[in-house]
Amino acid sequence: MSEASAGSVLPGPVLIVGCGLIGTSVALALREHGVEVYLDDARPANVEVAVSRGAGRPGPVDNPGLVVVAVPPAAVPDVVGDALTRWPNAIVTDLASVKDDLGRRIAGLPGAPRYVGSHPMAGSERSGPMAASGRLFEGRAWAITASDSSEPRAVAAVRELATLVGAVIVDMDAGTHDEAVALVSHLPHLLSVLAAAQLKGAPDGYLALAGPGLRDVTRIAGSDTGLWLEILQGNAVKVSALLKDVRGDLDSLIAGLDSDANAIAAVLRRGREGTRLVPGRHGDKDVEMATVFVQIPDQPGELSRLMAHTGESGINIEDIRIDHELGRPVGIVEVAIAAHNAEALVEALTSRGWSAYR
Amino acid sequence: MSEASAGSVLPGPVLIVGCGLIGTSVALALREHGVEVYLDDARPANVEVAVSRGAGRPGPVDNPGLVVVAVPPAAVPDVVGDALTRWPNAIVTDLASVKDDLGRRIAGLPGAPRYVGSHPMAGSERSGPMAASGRLFEGRAWAITASDSSEPRAVAAVRELATLVGAVIVDMDAGTHDEAVALVSHLPHLLSVLAAAQLKGAPDGYLALAGPGLRDVTRIAGSDTGLWLEILQGNAVKVSALLKDVRGDLDSLIAGLDSDANAIAAVLRRGREGTRLVPGRHGDKDVEMATVFVQIPDQPGELSRLMAHTGESGINIEDIRIDHELGRPVGIVEVAIAAHNAEALVEALTSRGWSAYR
Repeated sequence: MSEASAGSVLPGPVLIVGCGLIGTSVALALREHGVEVYLDDARPANVEVAVSRGAGRPGPVDNPGLVVVAVPPAAVPDVVGDALTRWPNAIVTDLASVKDDLGRRIAGLPGAPRYVGSHPMAGSERSGPMAASGRLFEGRAWAITASDSSEPRAVAAVRELATLVGAVIVDMDAGTHDEAVALVSHLPHLLSVLAAAQLKGAPDGYLALAGPGLRDVTRIAGSDTGLWLEILQGNAVKVSALLKDVRGDLDSLIAGLDSDANAIAAVLRRGREGTRLVPGRHGDKDVEMATVFVQIPDQPGELSRLMAHTGESGINIEDIRIDHELGRPVGIVEVAIAAHNAEALVEALTSRGWSAYR
Repeated sequence: MSEASAGSVLPGPVLIVGCGLIGTSVALALREHGVEVYLDDARPANVEVAVSRGAGRPGPVDNPGLVVVAVPPAAVPDVVGDALTRWPNAIVTDLASVKDDLGRRIAGLPGAPRYVGSHPMAGSERSGPMAASGRLFEGRAWAITASDSSEPRAVAAVRELATLVGAVIVDMDAGTHDEAVALVSHLPHLLSVLAAAQLKGAPDGYLALAGPGLRDVTRIAGSDTGLWLEILQGNAVKVSALLKDVRGDLDSLIAGLDSDANAIAAVLRRGREGTRLVPGRHGDKDVEMATVFVQIPDQPGELSRLMAHTGESGINIEDIRIDHELGRPVGIVEVAIAAHNAEALVEALTSRGWSAYR
């Protein structure tokens, strides 16, 4: 075993097992830092594609320093167990979305202290090695779920892996991790699914009244159902507990619609307060935000022209949303900016001939 | 009663009752077409603001041709009834989100054939006359819920109103309308609320694992709770029926997590199929879409520079999303384009010095 590259504490060479979107993306990111990477996959075609993209050499390899297991969730325990046995000096991590049950199953295996679980919070609506990118993890959270029995050098190696690929480390024990992703990922996914599932069989014309809200709520329900089935089964106890809480709120809403306005209002208020906890877009900022609406023809270059004019105004854009209009070759662009800049932006754009308003 | 403006069949003058966001926006749009508009509101300050923005003159007026009732949902029946009685020649419409119960209550009133309900599918996270815009309705759906007893001249007037302000008319009977908005607006709103409500009281650190999916699902749960309480109560029967269907699916998920993978898979699949019915952004297009990721420093002008470079490539942008990274002064921009253009865009941006990947 040797160091993976100069100046790095990552033990090398690195073996990636599973060359889908996530595994190949880790490999590409490591190659950009000169790390020696080998690639393995039950489907040889995946290895071929990953190799052709410069993600590393075909594996396996005799004496890997670090094995990164990026196979589908249900296959992870066996593949991790095999790796711990086959390479008695290697550090092993996996990238699956659910960690607690997995960690318990691995804890009893020979070599378990050389295993540290991790979970990069990154993905794509696409899958497979062709969709991979060496920059998929830049700036994304990467949960590391070390246990009390984890070897310090194993924890250090997995931390170095996350750091090298550009992610932001979030340390959590496995149980806490699973409870957190049940709340911020698995439950919202299922509520998106429940909203979308009701649309099936809707009479013609009902969807003509749909707006941006429906699109936002249902977007993630379009994800791969096979992968999600494995994720949900892997976190069944924690997801189920949350679903039962939701059923309590749902029952309050149904009862409230019958007779009790206070019960509805209480759930609406808790929901509104909950949205304030969600980080991102405007959540980190302490300034009040405003939206400026701009009409643009749906033509190449128009959006660029608009952005260039916005840039000339010197006002920072926080977020953009494009809404293609019903039955018209025109879009409405919603530009989110600090509220104190809104009037200035409207004036700047109007003076350049745009139809802009707040 | 006279025509509101040359070449229009809109009966004038128009009286707007309720000068909040929606009423004042209708007034501003009509003024842009030279329509004579009067403004009324239980809060004189709202009329003052609307007048100062050029939305019309302080009302009421002796003999309005069209009365547009844009007051909060619970107040609509009384205000419509008063208008029908007080101005026996006027056509009356309202803009409330729920129509069936309202229509039945109005059907028994003197002058009911002069009433036609309508519902513009437009809004904002802001409220009040200062947030109004004469272009709020451009390209948005505007449901018109005429009944068998509606006078043809009343239906024609409300259609002309929607057309003048730039909306796309969707004709529906009131019951169908309420069933449609329960499905595409009220139910998704409540499922967003249920996801967000679970976040309250989440332990520190759980939200550090949140991604774009959580933000999308919970966004609309941040809306005004008072307004939504009135909307939901007004459509209680239809919303309640959908919530009971959702409870059935929720019970299937809970039972499935315990023992039955097929039950979970069935709900996931129905959800995925449902998302294909949602119109908008990519939904209308027959071409396969792809996402190109670009890193930008969070500085004024950077997004504009990026858009300008994108525009020079001659490739049409379908959608943009900006994701501010965790703990870094850098953002990731997701650019949605036709899949066959993705590689060309990556090359065009890379050659101009951007870190772009798909």
